[in-house]
Amino acid sequence: MKARSTTLTQSGSLHGGDSKLVLQEEQRQDLGFGTKLNDPLSRLINKDGSFNIQRANEPFWDRVNLYNRLITMSWPQFLALVGLFYLTVNLLFAGIYLLLGAENLKGIADLTLYGRFWNSFFFSAQTLTTVGYGHIYPNSFITSTISSFESLVGLLAFALVTGLLYGRFSRPVAHIRFAKQAVFAPYLDVNAWMFRIINARSNQLIDVEVEVSLSRLEVHKGVKQRRYYTLNLERKKVTFFPTNWTLVHPITDESPLHGCTPEDLAESDAEFLILLRAIDDTFSQTVHARCSYRYNEVLWGHKYQPMFDGSKQGVVTLDLNLLDATTPAALN
Amino acid sequence: MKARSTTLTQSGSLHGGDSKLVLQEEQRQDLGFGTKLNDPLSRLINKDGSFNIQRANEPFWDRVNLYNRLITMSWPQFLALVGLFYLTVNLLFAGIYLLLGAENLKGIADLTLYGRFWNSFFFSAQTLTTVGYGHIYPNSFITSTISSFESLVGLLAFALVTGLLYGRFSRPVAHIRFAKQAVFAPYLDVNAWMFRIINARSNQLIDVEVEVSLSRLEVHKGVKQRRYYTLNLERKKVTFFPTNWTLVHPITDESPLHGCTPEDLAESDAEFLILLRAIDDTFSQTVHARCSYRYNEVLWGHKYQPMFDGSKQGVVTLDLNLLDATTPAALN
Amino acid sequence: MKARSTTLTQSGSLHGGDSKLVLQEEQRQDLGFGTKLNDPLSRLINKDGSFNIQRANEPFWDRVNLYNRLITMSWPQFLALVGLFYLTVNLLFAGIYLLLGAENLKGIADLTLYGRFWNSFFFSAQTLTTVGYGHIYPNSFITSTISSFESLVGLLAFALVTGLLYGRFSRPVAHIRFAKQAVFAPYLDVNAWMFRIINARSNQLIDVEVEVSLSRLEVHKGVKQRRYYTLNLERKKVTFFPTNWTLVHPITDESPLHGCTPEDLAESDAEFLILLRAIDDTFSQTVHARCSYRYNEVLWGHKYQPMFDGSKQGVVTLDLNLLDATTPAALN
Amino acid sequence: MKARSTTLTQSGSLHGGDSKLVLQEEQRQDLGFGTKLNDPLSRLINKDGSFNIQRANEPFWDRVNLYNRLITMSWPQFLALVGLFYLTVNLLFAGIYLLLGAENLKGIADLTLYGRFWNSFFFSAQTLTTVGYGHIYPNSFITSTISSFESLVGLLAFALVTGLLYGRFSRPVAHIRFAKQAVFAPYLDVNAWMFRIINARSNQLIDVEVEVSLSRLEVHKGVKQRRYYTLNLERKKVTFFPTNWTLVHPITDESPLHGCTPEDLAESDAEFLILLRAIDDTFSQTVHARCSYRYNEVLWGHKYQPMFDGSKQGVVTLDLNLLDATTPAALN
Repeated sequence: MKARSTTLTQSGSLHGGDSKLVLQEEQRQDLGFGTKLNDPLSRLINKDGSFNIQRANEPFWDRVNLYNRLITMSWPQFLALVGLFYLTVNLLFAGIYLLLGAENLKGIADLTLYGRFWNSFFFSAQTLTTVGYGHIYPNSFITSTISSFESLVGLLAFALVTGLLYGRFSRPVAHIRFAKQAVFAPYLDVNAWMFRIINARSNQLIDVEVEVSLSRLEVHKGVKQRRYYTLNLERKKVTFFPTNWTLVHPITDESPLHGCTPEDLAESDAEFLILLRAIDDTFSQTVHARCSYRYNEVLWGHKYQPMFDGSKQGVVTLDLNLLDATTPAALN
Repeated sequence: MKARSTTLTQSGSLHGGDSKLVLQEEQRQDLGFGTKLNDPLSRLINKDGSFNIQRANEPFWDRVNLYNRLITMSWPQFLALVGLFYLTVNLLFAGIYLLLGAENLKGIADLTLYGRFWNSFFFSAQTLTTVGYGHIYPNSFITSTISSFESLVGLLAFALVTGLLYGRFSRPVAHIRFAKQAVFAPYLDVNAWMFRIINARSNQLIDVEVEVSLSRLEVHKGVKQRRYYTLNLERKKVTFFPTNWTLVHPITDESPLHGCTPEDLAESDAEFLILLRAIDDTFSQTVHARCSYRYNEVLWGHKYQPMFDGSKQGVVTLDLNLLDATTPAALN
Repeated sequence: MKARSTTLTQSGSLHGGDSKLVLQEEQRQDLGFGTKLNDPLSRLINKDGSFNIQRANEPFWDRVNLYNRLITMSWPQFLALVGLFYLTVNLLFAGIYLLLGAENLKGIADLTLYGRFWNSFFFSAQTLTTVGYGHIYPNSFITSTISSFESLVGLLAFALVTGLLYGRFSRPVAHIRFAKQAVFAPYLDVNAWMFRIINARSNQLIDVEVEVSLSRLEVHKGVKQRRYYTLNLERKKVTFFPTNWTLVHPITDESPLHGCTPEDLAESDAEFLILLRAIDDTFSQTVHARCSYRYNEVLWGHKYQPMFDGSKQGVVTLDLNLLDATTPAALN
Repeated sequence: MKARSTTLTQSGSLHGGDSKLVLQEEQRQDLGFGTKLNDPLSRLINKDGSFNIQRANEPFWDRVNLYNRLITMSWPQFLALVGLFYLTVNLLFAGIYLLLGAENLKGIADLTLYGRFWNSFFFSAQTLTTVGYGHIYPNSFITSTISSFESLVGLLAFALVTGLLYGRFSRPVAHIRFAKQAVFAPYLDVNAWMFRIINARSNQLIDVEVEVSLSRLEVHKGVKQRRYYTLNLERKKVTFFPTNWTLVHPITDESPLHGCTPEDLAESDAEFLILLRAIDDTFSQTVHARCSYRYNEVLWGHKYQPMFDGSKQGVVTLDLNLLDATTPAALN
């Protein structure tokens, strides 16, 4: 009992005053999802770490969430968007120069409509990127004004693009690989629920801390509600993380999984929610990773195979391919 | 009693030594506003999160606070300022080139004063942005010197502008929407003061923590003073924040709101001060939000409507439009 | 006694094992200066927050500490350095072009040595800044190579310069103004050592925390040593910091200043060391400020004047000019 | 006993439930290396702070770890890479222009193959850096397209390069110099294991915290395993770090080194692992340093020489050359 209430003191107050119900409610754990998500078909955390929640009536700009989207979209998407933007802006300015009369741009040899258009287009590109060869140049007040404005637009727009480019490149992300399946394995003289992680990159993570919660449906006084339990871990923090790490929740008397069968897990729509915090050593930045295992992603009676190769002298080799490898193991 | 003193240990020392008055003063809570703000007409925290304090005799540069202002001003203001800066610098350099004699700039066809001026102006723009077409170019030592200097100025100035542009774009801000009105609603077997928040953007906030204080005027030994109380919350921290969150202060015996009527709140100029801290998951940055509810922004005997739409299978939809929606509810 | 040992648990371990001397040494406080700095003529922390320590035999690059120096030097120094760098690099490349023969640069009209030199110089400037008008251009393999290299150098060098420029501009600094003199004033039924601070800028600081230590020379068993004491404050942390803040160390029985006279302070070369930590709200960055008061910067029997102006209704005005203002006050 | 379990509460849970073995395992310390690294020939932490672990079957991009490598490689390597990149991209585009026919580039005087090639090459360089003199310019639709694309590539590529350049320059690193050898020296009435550090740079580090662990091989029930012990320090945190700092682990009854001989250390392949955390004051960034001393890097019966020079009045001089200096000292 003491274990659970100690955890509670950190995340909530423990002072129900004169009301027993208030005290009881204060002791109920909640990760922030609430008790209403009681549809057994959905998972709370998707495999990519996002949440399985839809939002209605979100204002346009909040939904677009421009910066966040530009930073987190894939590289091909981002580069395609930059190319599209470059093309569009140049087409727009080319149109303006053409409209104003291409005779205001000196140096265009090909005076057909087609020639004037593409020369205007490339003049625009040379202005936007500030390359400015000068074989075509603005010859009148109005085109000089437009091209001065365009070079300003170019400087500002490319400031954003290049900022985003480097922001994407240098963004601190925990490249944690979680084993595809958690296991229910024998552990010392009891059993334990375990999962295994590795650092996919060779940059160092330090002060790695993991929090595991169990979410499941329970019936209280006839009402189905989603409940949350923090799972005690044999070790929840390590200073260094150079190798693999198996996180172990021993199924003791105090565990909410005590006496649980695979069928119980399935029936209660159990999901194990994982939050990892660490510090990336390169820039001393905090990084996070999220993951979840649903009841059908837990192997019963299996244990993980070792990932170390001790065949060479004086050096330890970690075989990343063995992350998901398990072997059957009789439960205690 | 224990609740209040536990909170105190974190923000101050508890060792009054031999003086009872010192001990008592140490236990008084203060958010940093002091006890002198006892004018019932003012609010402490404005709705935009700023403080309702004026400053006199602030030195010029401290008052201007350039960087802070450039980062927090609105986008139209910022872009207008950039445009104005571009125009002004070019006008300035155009004036210099004109003064030095536009014959020092080769390539100007229109030799009227007007023609020399605008050609000088656009030459300046082409130099400042480093686009440098070259159809106009400096033809003498003095204009070469000026234009070399101008291109250096341009590089440095645009470094600041583009840095600011990206800094504004990537600045970590908690886009928290607070319900327009707090409520005084029934809660389990007691009543509670509540307010509701949502994350306006779809980026993830984690480790969200909320601190609520009550500020009100009290008369101690005939002197009106402003006092502060930290309000105990049923839950003050959540790990994830994908949906809405109703923060609940149960009115138990220990609450400074115990036995309070709407009239009491109004008379004591009560204001609920809220500070939210969270971690934005995209860049693992800490973000803050502030808000306050004055006594006339609390609805008595209302509760919030649920924001979830459970009509679709396997997916949960949060209707952001319902944030402010309340229904009457009889108090206990 | 309990107060002091509680503080110690945070900064050191309390387990001396079987040795009483080890236990005693573990309980001695030390800020990191050590006990050897026992020259009464020196101060530990200078008024600008730096430390009064000289370093001998530091390797050249460590002593130069380029990045740190470029970020913290004054703006005029920085801009002069940038100008000097621009000039030097252009002189260097101008020399190279001249040496290679200015006939390799086409477009130079003035073929005197002087003319060739300044044309080479400005061609270099136009290349370094990538403005590239093109009225002078490299006409041979060798000058083309040099100018290609110079434009690369320009891009890289200006990347550093502009990065530094913005880094200087956006660097998080706590603009805390400390009152020129601390005071020894009556406080409730005892006396207290106090000092006062304000936030010089209008950007918001939150979670402001102050740590005050007393450093003084003491004679233990005939050996003069510097000792350190953390001073208990009536309040050492505030959530918001919109106004002024007077930090108060009450002189109770437990205070190391109990029974102290101005002469005692002078004799023991007393210095009050202050470290302030806060979070700047604009970018949610942690900021620090350091300061110290020596024994001769403490006014005995004075108290600070209030800084508030309550003459206007509904608004509170803080007069920053009154920060240092004190009035005599009889000590208890 | 109390010391060790207090430390454990911070890094793990203490609730073994009904299983004594689980409880015992929870109390075992582990830094994240695991118990399997029991080859006495290897060290865990290399002298540069990296880990002595090899990784097999790492996917290509994870192994390359581009950003991390570009940030941490040496300056000559980085600059060589930038030069190589510049050369390669220009060669590539020069090839394309040549293939398309150099007659599409106007302004090339030397029409030999060699002349056309190097003119294409330098045109490419002028486009990539956006210097764009314009004496050579694209004269057809196809070369205009290619050069528009090249200037876009140039802007994006140099955005990365310059971002990396400044990122490398401004990267927060703790320039801590560790004494070459740790010592086993007399300390008060016992002995102590000590090592000494200085801040190699003059920028200020504050809140410096050090964690020292002992790793050694032990035989438990016939199985050789690597075990870890946190070593209690006389002082593990200092607020300021302006001078040198000798970290002291007193060998009391509770120390895992109690009664240890140099031979014991060698036989058990002992390694002292050190992690230092601090805050760099310039940008208020957290920095880390790692180091380790193996059993053969510990001097028995030596103590460190003082590094202070007190010969000048009113100023304290720290002689960095004396960091490694020791003198023999008889052990207690």
